[in-house]
Amino acid sequence: MTARRIEHSARSMPVLSALRDRWAQERPLEGVAVAACLPVTAETAVLVLALQAAGAAVALCSSNPLSTQDDVARALHAAGVAVRARRGASRDDYYAALRGTLDELADARCGVLLDDGCDLLSTLHDERADLLAAVPLAASEQTASGALRLRRLAAEGLLRLPVVAVDGSRVRRVVDTRWGSGQATVDALLRGSGLLIAGKTAVVAGYGDVGRAVATRLRGMGAHVVVTEVDPVAALEAVLEGHRVLPMADAVREADLVVTATGGIGVVAAEHVPLLRDGVVLVNAGHFDVEVDVAAVAAAGTRLPRVRPSLDTWQLPDGRRVSVLAEGRVAGLAAAEGSPPEAMDVAFALQALVVRWLVEQHPERAAVLPVPPELDARVAELALAALSVRVDVLSEEQRAYLSSWRSGS
Amino acid sequence: MTARRIEHSARSMPVLSALRDRWAQERPLEGVAVAACLPVTAETAVLVLALQAAGAAVALCSSNPLSTQDDVARALHAAGVAVRARRGASRDDYYAALRGTLDELADARCGVLLDDGCDLLSTLHDERADLLAAVPLAASEQTASGALRLRRLAAEGLLRLPVVAVDGSRVRRVVDTRWGSGQATVDALLRGSGLLIAGKTAVVAGYGDVGRAVATRLRGMGAHVVVTEVDPVAALEAVLEGHRVLPMADAVREADLVVTATGGIGVVAAEHVPLLRDGVVLVNAGHFDVEVDVAAVAAAGTRLPRVRPSLDTWQLPDGRRVSVLAEGRVAGLAAAEGSPPEAMDVAFALQALVVRWLVEQHPERAAVLPVPPELDARVAELALAALSVRVDVLSEEQRAYLSSWRSGS
Amino acid sequence: MTARRIEHSARSMPVLSALRDRWAQERPLEGVAVAACLPVTAETAVLVLALQAAGAAVALCSSNPLSTQDDVARALHAAGVAVRARRGASRDDYYAALRGTLDELADARCGVLLDDGCDLLSTLHDERADLLAAVPLAASEQTASGALRLRRLAAEGLLRLPVVAVDGSRVRRVVDTRWGSGQATVDALLRGSGLLIAGKTAVVAGYGDVGRAVATRLRGMGAHVVVTEVDPVAALEAVLEGHRVLPMADAVREADLVVTATGGIGVVAAEHVPLLRDGVVLVNAGHFDVEVDVAAVAAAGTRLPRVRPSLDTWQLPDGRRVSVLAEGRVAGLAAAEGSPPEAMDVAFALQALVVRWLVEQHPERAAVLPVPPELDARVAELALAALSVRVDVLSEEQRAYLSSWRSGS
Amino acid sequence: MTARRIEHSARSMPVLSALRDRWAQERPLEGVAVAACLPVTAETAVLVLALQAAGAAVALCSSNPLSTQDDVARALHAAGVAVRARRGASRDDYYAALRGTLDELADARCGVLLDDGCDLLSTLHDERADLLAAVPLAASEQTASGALRLRRLAAEGLLRLPVVAVDGSRVRRVVDTRWGSGQATVDALLRGSGLLIAGKTAVVAGYGDVGRAVATRLRGMGAHVVVTEVDPVAALEAVLEGHRVLPMADAVREADLVVTATGGIGVVAAEHVPLLRDGVVLVNAGHFDVEVDVAAVAAAGTRLPRVRPSLDTWQLPDGRRVSVLAEGRVAGLAAAEGSPPEAMDVAFALQALVVRWLVEQHPERAAVLPVPPELDARVAELALAALSVRVDVLSEEQRAYLSSWRSGS
Ligand SMILES: NC(=O)C1=CN([C@@H]2O[C@H](COP(=O)(O)OP(=O)(O)OC[C@H]3O[C@@H](n4cnc5c(N)ncnc54)[C@H](O)[C@@H]3O)[C@@H](O)[C@H]2O)C=CC1
Ligand SMILES: NC(=O)C1=CN([C@@H]2O[C@H](COP(=O)(O)OP(=O)(O)OC[C@H]3O[C@@H](n4cnc5c(N)ncnc54)[C@H](O)[C@@H]3O)[C@@H](O)[C@H]2O)C=CC1
Repeated sequence: MTARRIEHSARSMPVLSALRDRWAQERPLEGVAVAACLPVTAETAVLVLALQAAGAAVALCSSNPLSTQDDVARALHAAGVAVRARRGASRDDYYAALRGTLDELADARCGVLLDDGCDLLSTLHDERADLLAAVPLAASEQTASGALRLRRLAAEGLLRLPVVAVDGSRVRRVVDTRWGSGQATVDALLRGSGLLIAGKTAVVAGYGDVGRAVATRLRGMGAHVVVTEVDPVAALEAVLEGHRVLPMADAVREADLVVTATGGIGVVAAEHVPLLRDGVVLVNAGHFDVEVDVAAVAAAGTRLPRVRPSLDTWQLPDGRRVSVLAEGRVAGLAAAEGSPPEAMDVAFALQALVVRWLVEQHPERAAVLPVPPELDARVAELALAALSVRVDVLSEEQRAYLSSWRSGS
Repeated sequence: MTARRIEHSARSMPVLSALRDRWAQERPLEGVAVAACLPVTAETAVLVLALQAAGAAVALCSSNPLSTQDDVARALHAAGVAVRARRGASRDDYYAALRGTLDELADARCGVLLDDGCDLLSTLHDERADLLAAVPLAASEQTASGALRLRRLAAEGLLRLPVVAVDGSRVRRVVDTRWGSGQATVDALLRGSGLLIAGKTAVVAGYGDVGRAVATRLRGMGAHVVVTEVDPVAALEAVLEGHRVLPMADAVREADLVVTATGGIGVVAAEHVPLLRDGVVLVNAGHFDVEVDVAAVAAAGTRLPRVRPSLDTWQLPDGRRVSVLAEGRVAGLAAAEGSPPEAMDVAFALQALVVRWLVEQHPERAAVLPVPPELDARVAELALAALSVRVDVLSEEQRAYLSSWRSGS
Repeated sequence: MTARRIEHSARSMPVLSALRDRWAQERPLEGVAVAACLPVTAETAVLVLALQAAGAAVALCSSNPLSTQDDVARALHAAGVAVRARRGASRDDYYAALRGTLDELADARCGVLLDDGCDLLSTLHDERADLLAAVPLAASEQTASGALRLRRLAAEGLLRLPVVAVDGSRVRRVVDTRWGSGQATVDALLRGSGLLIAGKTAVVAGYGDVGRAVATRLRGMGAHVVVTEVDPVAALEAVLEGHRVLPMADAVREADLVVTATGGIGVVAAEHVPLLRDGVVLVNAGHFDVEVDVAAVAAAGTRLPRVRPSLDTWQLPDGRRVSVLAEGRVAGLAAAEGSPPEAMDVAFALQALVVRWLVEQHPERAAVLPVPPELDARVAELALAALSVRVDVLSEEQRAYLSSWRSGS
Repeated sequence: MTARRIEHSARSMPVLSALRDRWAQERPLEGVAVAACLPVTAETAVLVLALQAAGAAVALCSSNPLSTQDDVARALHAAGVAVRARRGASRDDYYAALRGTLDELADARCGVLLDDGCDLLSTLHDERADLLAAVPLAASEQTASGALRLRRLAAEGLLRLPVVAVDGSRVRRVVDTRWGSGQATVDALLRGSGLLIAGKTAVVAGYGDVGRAVATRLRGMGAHVVVTEVDPVAALEAVLEGHRVLPMADAVREADLVVTATGGIGVVAAEHVPLLRDGVVLVNAGHFDVEVDVAAVAAAGTRLPRVRPSLDTWQLPDGRRVSVLAEGRVAGLAAAEGSPPEAMDVAFALQALVVRWLVEQHPERAAVLPVPPELDARVAELALAALSVRVDVLSEEQRAYLSSWRSGS
C-alpha cells in the first residue's frame, strides 16, 4: 500500500524517475553519504530512493515532524535508508534526529547535506565543526528562508562549506512559484468556496511571480481582476497586462474575492473591514498567515457555524458577511493539495542534480552558490521530454554568431 | 442546522432571494396552487419558500428519490409545504407521491406545475385529465429531455396545457450551460486528478456551449487545447478562436487530457485506446456517461487500486496507464459539486418568474412555449444588481432610432 | 496589372477559387442568367468569373458607383461579362445600369439576381413585373438593410420571388461579423492613432457580435476593457467573460479609448463631452456614423490641424483634447482596409453556393429565406480545407444515437 | 508646423513632459553641458528641450544621418541648441559633427554625454582624452550594442568615465521591449499582409521578452501559436503558458505566419524553404535582418510584382508562394511605426533622469553602471500618474516586516 503510493508518486514524477533509471546504471554517487532533512512524504521517498539507486548511502530525518508520514518512514527504513523520523516527534527528538543524521556522515569519502530550512546546516556549524574538518562536505538548501539564514552566516564569515540555494532556480520559478502556485490557489478557492469565479471582481494584492500567476489564472476563470501594489514598476507591469490597478482601500469596496500574495503583513487589515462588500471571500497565497488580518475580521463580527470545511464566515453588526479561507494560511496548501506533483518533480530532480554536481565539481569556496544554469537546463530538458516536446539545437554557425555578438565582433 | 443550510443557500442565491423579499409584500401568487416535482435540496427549498411567501400553496414531490435530502423535506413540511418525498423511495412510492401532489391542485382557483423531467406532466395527462378540465392549469419544465417529451406530445396533438420550456433561456445558457459547466469541469479535473493543467495538451471533443466553455477555461489554466468536431461551422469557430482542430484519432495521440462534451456516444472509443498516451486522463462533461467508452478501456487493461477517490486507472499490457474520471459520468457533478450556486439561482429565479408570468398572462394555447424574453431580462437585471453592476437605459431617441431601423424607415 | 490584382485576390480567396475550379468541370450553371448588382472590385471579379466558369451568363452593375474600380469593370467586360458600371456614375446612369442589367434576364431559361442593398430587386418589382411572369427568377440579398426592405415587402404581400437573405448565415457571422470586424477595428486603431493599446482603459459600447469581438481583441492587445450595454442579458454575458460593465457616464470618465458597436445612435453624445479624459480617442465600429456625435465634440472645442491622416483632434476650452477616428465612420473600413480577404471569401463563396442552390432547388414560395444550413456547412468545410484542418465524421451508430435522442427514444 | 509636431510628440510623452515642467522651475542642470548623439526626431527634440529647460547647455549631433529630420534640427537650432546634423550627411561630416559636439564640453563646469551606439564615447576616448582630464564627465548609453562595446572597453581597463547603460532598465524592458515590440509587430503584420490573423497558425521563433510578447499578442488576435526555442527553460516556459513547442523543421510545415525574435541568424533558412506552406508570410522581429534568410527564399523562386507596399512574394517552381515582410528587416520599424510614443516616453524620461542623477551623484568609478532602481521606480510612478493609476504605500510596520524578513529576523 505505501509502496503503491510511492510508486504512484514516482509515476507523477517523470523527471526524477528518468534520472533514477539512468543513475541506477551509472552509479555516480557510489561511496557518497547523503544526509537529508526533508518533509517525509511519498515524493521525498522517490528522491531518496533515486539517490540510493545512484549509489549513495542516505540518512534521512524530518524537517517537519507534523507532516511526517510514518508509513513512508517505515518503507524507507525497510529499503535500507537510515531514517530518523516520527510524526509528532518532540523538540528533543527532533534535534536528536538531526544529530544522528549528521553522525552518518562521519566515515564517508565525501558527504552532501540536503536541507529544508537550514536546521541541519545550523546544527552542523554549531555542534559538529569536527565533521567539516574531517570529511569533504557540501550542501543544498531548498527554501528561501533557509537561504537567507545561510547568506547571513556567509556575510559574517562563518559559513564553512559550499551550499547551493535551490530557491533561485529559473526552472523552479517558472514551474513551481508561478504556475504551480497559480493553480493551487484557484483550486483552493473552488474547493473552499464553491463560488462561480466568472463575473466576480477579484482583487490580487502583489504582482510578483505568485500574484501575477494568480491574476492570470483568475482572469482565465472569468474574473475581473484588480491588482494592488506598492512597487510602481510592478504596478505598471500589471497595468500593461490589462489589469486594473487600485489602492487597496478602493479595491476592497468592489471585491468579491481578495487574494494576497505580497510576502508582507497586514495587507487586508482592520481599516479595510468596514469597506468590505457583503459576501467577500479573503484568501492568502503568501507564505505566512499574516497577510490577511483574520483577528481583525473576527473582532469585528460574530463567527457563524461552518458550512464548508475550510471556510469561516463572520457576520458584521450591519449584516455584511465576510469569509476567510483556511484561516488565512497559504490557501493552496491549506485548502487544496499544495504544489502539483509536476512542481515537486522539478524541485526534487533539481536537488538530485545538485547533489551529483557537488560531488563531481566539488566547489571549494564556502559560499552560497546559485544553481548552475546547466542544471536548470537539464531539468527543463527532462521535463520537456516527459511531455514529448522537442526543441531546436543551435547550429555551429548560429552559436558562433550569437557568441561573437555577445562578446563583441 | 437544516434551517441554517437553507439560509446559507438563500445567501448564495441573491436573485431568488430578492424576488422572495419583494413578493412577500406583493403576494402575487395568492390563491395559486403550485405542484412541484423537483430534486429535494436546500436550493429547491429556497424556491419553494419563495413561492409560498408570494402566496402560493405549494405541494412538492421528488424528481429523484436518490438525491432527496430528508432533513430538507422535514423542514419544508414544518413550514407548511405539502411534501411527499423520502430518500430512496420505491418506484411505487414515487408514483404515489406524483399522484398525491397532483391531488393538491384539485380545488385551486388556478394551478401551476413545475416539472423536472416530465413525469409529473405525463401522469397528469395519463391519469388526471379531469383536473385539466376542472382547473386552469399551466406548467414549466426545467430540463431539455423533459421538453423533448413535451414537444413530441404537442406534435401528436396530445398536449393539453401551456408549458414553458425553461432550458432554452438565454440567460440560463450563458450562466449555467456555459460558464457554470466550464468551471465545474475544471474543478472536477483539479480535485479528481491533482495534475498541473498548465503545459498539458487537452483535447476537447465538441465545441458547443459546453465544449467552448471548457476549452476556454482549460486554456485559461495554461493548457494547450485541441478541439475535435463533426460540424464544420463549429470547427471553423474553434479555429478562429485560436484552437487547434484535429480528428480524434490524431488528437488522442497527443492528449494528456481528453474532455468530451458532445451529447453523443462513443467519442473516445475502443479504436482510440491503442493510441492513448501513457498517463492520459479521460473526462466526460456531457450529460450521459456514454461519451467515453469506459468498458473499452477496462477491457484493454488491468485496473489498478484507486489512489485518488474519483479516479480509476487501468494499466495496459504495454505499460501505458489510462485514467478515467468519475467512471465517465458528467464530471462536474460526479467529481465536484455540480452547478455553482449562482447558476442554480438563475435557474430557479427564472422558474419563479415563469410561475408568476403563467398566472398573470394565463396563455391559452396548449403548446410548448419559450421563456418570454422579458423574464430573461428580469433575471439578468437582478443578477447584475447582486453584483452591483449598473447598465445604461436607452433614451427615447435611441429607442426610436433602433426600432425605426428595425421596422424599416 | 488588373488581371494580376484579380489573380492576387483569387489567391486570397481559396474557398471561392476551389468552387470555381470544380464548377469549371461540372458547369452547373449552364444556361442560367445571373444579374448582379455589387460593388465592382477585384473580389467581386473573382465571384463573377467563378459564376461564368460554371456556365452562367453574367450581367453586372455597380451597387456603389463611388467605389467602382474602372479597370476591374474593363477586365470583366473583356472577359465577356455584360458590365454596366463606371466610377462616379450619375444617378440616372445608375438606374439605367440597373434596368439594362435586368434586361439581360429576358430570354434566359432561368435567372438569379444577386443584390446588395435591394435596389436591383426594387427596380424589378417596380418596373419589370413582366420579367417575373416570363422567366423563373430567384434572388440572393447580401446586406442586413436590404433584407429588411425585402421583409417589409413580404409582410405586405408584395414580394414576388424567393430571396435568400445571406446576412443571417452562421458561418458569415463567425468569420465576418465577429472576427473580421474585431481585427479591422484594432487595425484601424493602430494605424489611426499609433497609440500603445496595452495599459489603456478601452470602453466598448454594445456587447453584440461586433462589440464582443472588439472587446476580446482589445483585451488581447493588453487593454483593460469596460463594456456598456442596455440589454441586461448581454451585460451579464460581458460580466461573466471578465469585463467590467459600467453606465457610459461613468465609463467615459476613465476611458482612454471608446469604441461604439451598438447599431444605435448618440452613444457618445454631447452630455459625455464634459466627462471625457484628456487625450481620449473615439472610434465607431457600427455601421452608420451616428454612434459618436462628432458634431457635439466639434461644437465643444477648436479643431487642431491634423497630424495623423485619419485622426481629428479638438481642443476643449479647459485644455483637454478629444480625438475622433475617421470622422466617426465605421473605422475598420474608413481607417483600415475593411473586411480581411478571408471574410470576403466566405461571403462570396456563400453567394455562389446560394446561386447554385436556387437553380437546382428552385424554391417556389415568394419569401425571404434563410441560408440553407448545408450551404453554411459547405463553406465552412472548404474554409477548413484551405487551412488544412480536418474534422471527424459521425459514425452510423453516433448519428443514430444523436437523432434518436433528438427525436425522442 | 515643426513646432506643432514637436508639441504633438510632447503631448504623447507625458512622463518626459512632466519632468520638463517641474525642472523648468527647479533648474537642476544649471551650468551642465550635455553632448548628445541621438537620432534627430521630434521625440528627441522633446528630450533636448527638457534638458535645456532644466538649465543645461545642449549640443546635439545625429546618431543616424539617414533618419535625421532637418526641420527638427532647424527648430532646435532656433531654440538655442548647438545642432550639428543634416539628413544624408557624409561619413566625414558625421565624424566632424561628433568632434564638434565634443568641443562644446570644453569649458563646462561638468558634462554629460548621451550616446546611442557608442560612437560619441569612442571618439571621446580615441581623440579627446584631454577633455576627460579637464572636465568631470559622465555618460549614458541607450543601446544594447553600445553597452557591449563599453563593457569590452571596461574589461580591457580602458574605460575612462562612468557610463550608465540604459538598456537593462526594468521599466524599459516591460514597456518597450515587451509590449511595445509586441504591438509594433502585430501592427506591421496587419498593415503589411492584410491577412486575418484569427485562425492562422503562427510560429514564433524565440521565447524571450520579444518573442513572448509577440506570441501573447498573436494569440490575442486569434492565432494558434507554435513556439520554437533552443533553450529548454524558455521552451518549458512557453509550454506552461499554453503554447505548442516544436522544432522549426516541424513548425514550418504548419505555419501560415512565421515571426522570428531570437537575436540569432538563419532561423528560417534554406533548409526550411522546401517545407513552407503555400501562402506563408515570413516576418522578422529581431534587431538584425539575418533571422530570415531572404536570399534563400529568393534563390528558390521567382519574385512576383509587388501588390502590397512592404510585402515581397516569391513563387516557387512547385507553385507555392512565400512572402517576406519588409525584406526581413525588423518589421515593427520597417513596416509600421516602430515603438509607440509611450515607449519612447519611458526611454527618454529615463535618459533625462539619468543625466540628473549623474550630475547630482557624480559616481567616481569608470565603469558601466546599471540604471539605479529608484530611477526606474520614478519613471514608472510618472507613467502611472499619466494613466491616473494610484498605488499603495507601505506602512511603517509593513516596511519593517519586509526588511526584517529580508535581512533575517
Ligand atoms: N501560494 C503558493 O503556492 C506560493 C506562495 N509563495 C509566497 O507568495 C508570496 C509572494 O511571492 P513572490 O510573488 O515570489 O514574491 P515577490 O517578492 O516577487 O512579489 C511580491 C510583490 O508584492 C508587492 N507588495 C509587497 N507588499 C505589498 C502590499 N502591502 N500591498 C500590495 N503589494 C505589495 C511587492 O511590491 C512585490 O511586487 C511570498 O510570501 C512567497 O513565499 C511562494 C511560492 C508559492
Ligand atoms: N465594424 C465592422 O466591421 C462591422 C460592423 N457591424 C455593425 O456593428 C453594429 C453592431 O452589430 P452587432 O454586434 O452584430 O449587433 P447586435 O445587435 O448583435 O449588438 C448590438 C448590442 O448593442 C447594444 N446596445 C444598443 N444600444 C446601446 C447603447 N446606447 N449603449 C450600449 N449598448 C447598446 C444592444 O443591446 C446589443 O447587445 C451594427 O451597426 C452593425 O451593422 C457589423 C458587421 C461588421
